[in-house]
Amino acid sequence: MIGGAAGSFIGPVHRMAAALEGKIELVCGAFSSIPAKSYKMGKELFLDDDRVYISYEEMIEKERKLPSEKRVDFISIVTPNYLHYPIAKTCLEAGFNIVCDKPLVNTIEEADELCRLTKKQNVLFAVTYCFSAYPLVKQARELVRKGILGNIQKIIVEYSTGWLLKAVEVNKMTQKDIWRMVPAKVGNSLCIGDIGVHAENLAYTIVGLEMEKLNAVTNSYIKGTRLDDEANILVKYQNGVRGIIICSVVAVGETENLVIRVYGNKASLEWHENFPEQLILKEPNGPEKIYKRDADYLEPIAKYNTRFPVGLPEGYVEAFANIYSNFANTLMARESGRDPSEFDLDFPNVFDGARGVYFISCALESAKSNQWVNMEFDPFKY
Amino acid sequence: MIGGAAGSFIGPVHRMAAALEGKIELVCGAFSSIPAKSYKMGKELFLDDDRVYISYEEMIEKERKLPSEKRVDFISIVTPNYLHYPIAKTCLEAGFNIVCDKPLVNTIEEADELCRLTKKQNVLFAVTYCFSAYPLVKQARELVRKGILGNIQKIIVEYSTGWLLKAVEVNKMTQKDIWRMVPAKVGNSLCIGDIGVHAENLAYTIVGLEMEKLNAVTNSYIKGTRLDDEANILVKYQNGVRGIIICSVVAVGETENLVIRVYGNKASLEWHENFPEQLILKEPNGPEKIYKRDADYLEPIAKYNTRFPVGLPEGYVEAFANIYSNFANTLMARESGRDPSEFDLDFPNVFDGARGVYFISCALESAKSNQWVNMEFDPFKY
Amino acid sequence: MIGGAAGSFIGPVHRMAAALEGKIELVCGAFSSIPAKSYKMGKELFLDDDRVYISYEEMIEKERKLPSEKRVDFISIVTPNYLHYPIAKTCLEAGFNIVCDKPLVNTIEEADELCRLTKKQNVLFAVTYCFSAYPLVKQARELVRKGILGNIQKIIVEYSTGWLLKAVEVNKMTQKDIWRMVPAKVGNSLCIGDIGVHAENLAYTIVGLEMEKLNAVTNSYIKGTRLDDEANILVKYQNGVRGIIICSVVAVGETENLVIRVYGNKASLEWHENFPEQLILKEPNGPEKIYKRDADYLEPIAKYNTRFPVGLPEGYVEAFANIYSNFANTLMARESGRDPSEFDLDFPNVFDGARGVYFISCALESAKSNQWVNMEFDPFKY
Amino acid sequence: MIGGAAGSFIGPVHRMAAALEGKIELVCGAFSSIPAKSYKMGKELFLDDDRVYISYEEMIEKERKLPSEKRVDFISIVTPNYLHYPIAKTCLEAGFNIVCDKPLVNTIEEADELCRLTKKQNVLFAVTYCFSAYPLVKQARELVRKGILGNIQKIIVEYSTGWLLKAVEVNKMTQKDIWRMVPAKVGNSLCIGDIGVHAENLAYTIVGLEMEKLNAVTNSYIKGTRLDDEANILVKYQNGVRGIIICSVVAVGETENLVIRVYGNKASLEWHENFPEQLILKEPNGPEKIYKRDADYLEPIAKYNTRFPVGLPEGYVEAFANIYSNFANTLMARESGRDPSEFDLDFPNVFDGARGVYFISCALESAKSNQWVNMEFDPFKY
Repeated sequence: MIGGAAGSFIGPVHRMAAALEGKIELVCGAFSSIPAKSYKMGKELFLDDDRVYISYEEMIEKERKLPSEKRVDFISIVTPNYLHYPIAKTCLEAGFNIVCDKPLVNTIEEADELCRLTKKQNVLFAVTYCFSAYPLVKQARELVRKGILGNIQKIIVEYSTGWLLKAVEVNKMTQKDIWRMVPAKVGNSLCIGDIGVHAENLAYTIVGLEMEKLNAVTNSYIKGTRLDDEANILVKYQNGVRGIIICSVVAVGETENLVIRVYGNKASLEWHENFPEQLILKEPNGPEKIYKRDADYLEPIAKYNTRFPVGLPEGYVEAFANIYSNFANTLMARESGRDPSEFDLDFPNVFDGARGVYFISCALESAKSNQWVNMEFDPFKY
Repeated sequence: MIGGAAGSFIGPVHRMAAALEGKIELVCGAFSSIPAKSYKMGKELFLDDDRVYISYEEMIEKERKLPSEKRVDFISIVTPNYLHYPIAKTCLEAGFNIVCDKPLVNTIEEADELCRLTKKQNVLFAVTYCFSAYPLVKQARELVRKGILGNIQKIIVEYSTGWLLKAVEVNKMTQKDIWRMVPAKVGNSLCIGDIGVHAENLAYTIVGLEMEKLNAVTNSYIKGTRLDDEANILVKYQNGVRGIIICSVVAVGETENLVIRVYGNKASLEWHENFPEQLILKEPNGPEKIYKRDADYLEPIAKYNTRFPVGLPEGYVEAFANIYSNFANTLMARESGRDPSEFDLDFPNVFDGARGVYFISCALESAKSNQWVNMEFDPFKY
Repeated sequence: MIGGAAGSFIGPVHRMAAALEGKIELVCGAFSSIPAKSYKMGKELFLDDDRVYISYEEMIEKERKLPSEKRVDFISIVTPNYLHYPIAKTCLEAGFNIVCDKPLVNTIEEADELCRLTKKQNVLFAVTYCFSAYPLVKQARELVRKGILGNIQKIIVEYSTGWLLKAVEVNKMTQKDIWRMVPAKVGNSLCIGDIGVHAENLAYTIVGLEMEKLNAVTNSYIKGTRLDDEANILVKYQNGVRGIIICSVVAVGETENLVIRVYGNKASLEWHENFPEQLILKEPNGPEKIYKRDADYLEPIAKYNTRFPVGLPEGYVEAFANIYSNFANTLMARESGRDPSEFDLDFPNVFDGARGVYFISCALESAKSNQWVNMEFDPFKY
Repeated sequence: MIGGAAGSFIGPVHRMAAALEGKIELVCGAFSSIPAKSYKMGKELFLDDDRVYISYEEMIEKERKLPSEKRVDFISIVTPNYLHYPIAKTCLEAGFNIVCDKPLVNTIEEADELCRLTKKQNVLFAVTYCFSAYPLVKQARELVRKGILGNIQKIIVEYSTGWLLKAVEVNKMTQKDIWRMVPAKVGNSLCIGDIGVHAENLAYTIVGLEMEKLNAVTNSYIKGTRLDDEANILVKYQNGVRGIIICSVVAVGETENLVIRVYGNKASLEWHENFPEQLILKEPNGPEKIYKRDADYLEPIAKYNTRFPVGLPEGYVEAFANIYSNFANTLMARESGRDPSEFDLDFPNVFDGARGVYFISCALESAKSNQWVNMEFDPFKY
């Protein structure tokens, strides 16, 4: 693990998600650029001191020289955004498999470079779009694929939360919050980069359509930041499908209110991340249907990504763990010379990460120019 | 009543709403331009034949000549849209008070003319934006007025329904449906004119801000219509407030899904027309609050517009009846020389109707030009 | 109408319900035993003074002598409970059709007598168990009849509300409340008689099973009353079906929380009176299904009892109006020599009212004796 | 760990819960009485073969002889019910700390013996009533303690699920299911022992009142079992508080529907295990309040038991992990000579386990005798 020392929000999430199933063990880390902090975290995690490093360069350098049975199998990158690119690049060049948090990187050029390197090095690269890994999101995708919704017409995704305004108003900005308001660390987007990309990836996961054009309005309600803390984005997808993406970190009172609705000409579906155990299907000529997680009637790939019977609620950590678990299974298959199963290959990868970076860039350009802007992402070009 | 013969959807709604409290009696009508249909409806409603008319012109002509104690006190217009203007104009010129369905009329010029005439004739003119008359919508407005939400930042209103696509797909177009697809009858908008204006008025009722600019995308998924069956509209309100209005009559599976959320910098609120007995207030530092209809803690004007204890659900007809009841109370006050109370004056009027017409016009212009368009409505100009 | 002067809760409900569809006209009344109050109410309702009476005896006496085209078609009894019996008996003996509020009467003997008289006089007698008249309750009954639930195993009904404790605690006892605590007026039960019978009738309506034995615990939390303000009742129905009826008027914070769940061996269903537009069906091998009011897929008798498209919410007054409307249709059919339709005959009648009286009596006896008590009601004995 | 080989349901749950926070490491196990199965599980869990045992006796014997720095710190018992007693007794006599699944044991005598031994040996003994460990359950308890509800009047707990009927009907009985129907393995209760005790403990956790009398009806809908598959239980708690406990494993369509409601004379609360992120407080004179997990306004002990911001849902595994985490913290405090904090001591213990055993026994006796039966549990007698 690179990053994730005391004060990190996402570091412990990755560790819990990785630990849940007992098949991944944390063996080394460069948790902070401050040596004492890194060693302290290593001690808390019961690591040997000689596997705790004081920089990512040192870690990659030393780990690559270890014998393969001792060497780390993959590296999780959980630093602030601006470090994703140099670390991932170094990891890739050293041939390591990667799990990286989102957004992947800050520029289209960086995204392209990581895509190319991943292909070239033939390593595994997961991006932790955790919300797309919920079992009922996979069920939703299968319902779309099977044509239950008919021709898709419209996608509405919203991810509203009030955390930033709350943190500002009640004067409780902590380390976890502050870096997200500093362009040098977070990149050129606050809200779209932090949560807009989750909305974008959720829609892509379920519907599988590329965006063609965006028309975005961004706002900056928080005083003192020039970054977007809210965005409302009209989207034109392939095939004439229309979309709306709404995201905000200043929506007072909302708590990670991520909702997607997809409308076809035969049926529509709705899923709320706050109530992830239910997927709603609405058809014009029958009762509304509530699909439950872990039900017998779910598609096999949805059931594959659950652990407990419905009614014993799963949530965020299990979704996150699905990425780690599938990634690890794929890795183990490759390392033992087997083909990984289609189910295990089902995790967001570097190309999904790159798509998000294009989306951020395109939305910001539209907001600046007050016009529709083309989105030029092509996953097949690498 | 003008309009509302057999086959009409909204006619019986007006009649039930007017009858609910026992203070309004239907005494005459021109229910259809087909005499036999009009007389048949009159008979069903237990009217005397001499108060059933075969045209609105005849009705207005004859009723105005009746002695005042026998003459109708006000006229309800429940015809297809294209007739609202000539009928309302004739009524106004004859000095009659009016209750008219929405959208008020089809053009800005017509709207302006009705506003001017209403002022000149000094009559009462209600427009039945029924959703704005729910008691908890009034409560929401009072919470905004009292500053509970702080400075308003964002308004999201959605009114999605799938009725038209369903009617088309399952081949069940009835008289109630068909005229809405015919520009000569419905005007130049299908979806925005039918339900978008409800969303617009709901936001205005609660927040009281005028729109400054619109950026709309409209679509026509139904084959064979050139009218909008869906619209996604970005809005810039006064004071830098941002808005999104989403409306659709092709959202398969949705059943009058009208939802408004208003975000301030101190709190946000949320109301669903499908669950109208609950108003949700979200504050950053306390539990979410669910206001219930008819609770002791509601604002007096909200309680004034309820009938039964919460738990004995009220709905659409009671909201509709609130307009009729307040309108009738205002009328009775005026006729007996009293000042009507502020509570009774609280119904949507001709200026609200005109605002809706400007909104439709402006949204369509934006959709055509693919640009932001200014909305020039000024209620004080008449 | 007998009863229902100023201060009455249920009187205006009956009037609104009867007025809703425009086919019932209030023509006479004995609204109060205080002449001035009765005349005042008559004036408010635009009645002629000569059809306002100062006692029910006077009204029945004078109305029966009117020529049939002028005479009232049926009489609504909306007085406090203790008057139901003498009024209904007098009406029956005079040959009038009746709509009576619940509970029907205070003793088994009175109930038996009204059942016998109704049969003998061959008149119509409706009892306003309004909650059983919701369209989705009728849908639930049809699902049970069609065997969708398989063999019924268990019924759970709860009707909890906090109105009385609230009224007591905040010192706001009004006329509407006080008589319910006085045995001479309300009878020997407060909670079971007021709302327990609604729960009992709701279960009977849906499942159609008679109770065989009851085991009840009652409590009296309100100081100064010896009447039950809460009851928890174990039930053994016919066919080995088990039941639980929970009712309370001291459940602080609850607002008419009436919920029924029925479990069969193939599926179960659930309906909340607070959210009456949804009926939930749970099957072991498929998604949960939400039936909506007014959907095309509903049973015809359920659709027959709705007015507006789902999404335009109906509620309490419409359910109440269903009883009046069906009753009136049956009456008109009989008066014109036609057989009333099965749909129109679908309203709770005097035998349902009697069943409720037996239920109250049996539950009180069990609570007193601390034992299981047999319920001896037999609708076929009259 | 003792028990939990392949095919076990609860074994993996315990392992995931223990692993979540990274402070507990599984070091040894007797996973099955079949040696090969035990070794296979040990291998899957990356254990050394010399820490995998073929019987619990062997494990306890060998582990107690290990030097303290290598010896296991505590033992988790996750076997079928009938083995809890002999294993726990042996562990206690050997001085080991214990985490044991519920129900604790099968008889009152066994429960008494374990309580006495635990006191005598002065070890830690947790019982995994996981539902009582949800953060908002702790919040509910604090609201009761602070008097927000006033005097408690009534408790309604229901735990309905349809798993067994479903398993029987669709012929999918697996190893996980079958032993629960065999008295020699499960004890003398199926439904009350499996889930009724969860309901009992949940009420006790929140309200802290002992039961005085029970009146139970049990049923056996499943053919071929003489054990209860459903129970409806009237309860008299201390202080005149009334209760109802409903539990079922044949409630078709329900998925672990565990709901508790507590009514006081000032307010009532409601919590659904299926939606564990919300706690509802209903007061007579204000809006309904929805407490959210991880909100700033929660009581400190509730916040102490959460990990992620609300909106990133926690569920079953986190609740389970709270028991393990608090237990481990208490253990570490004791081993380092510190007093454990009040927060860490907050896990269900052997006395809570014993209370559940008394409850089962008392309910079965009442069901058999058809009478009220006294419950004689006294946690202070040991």
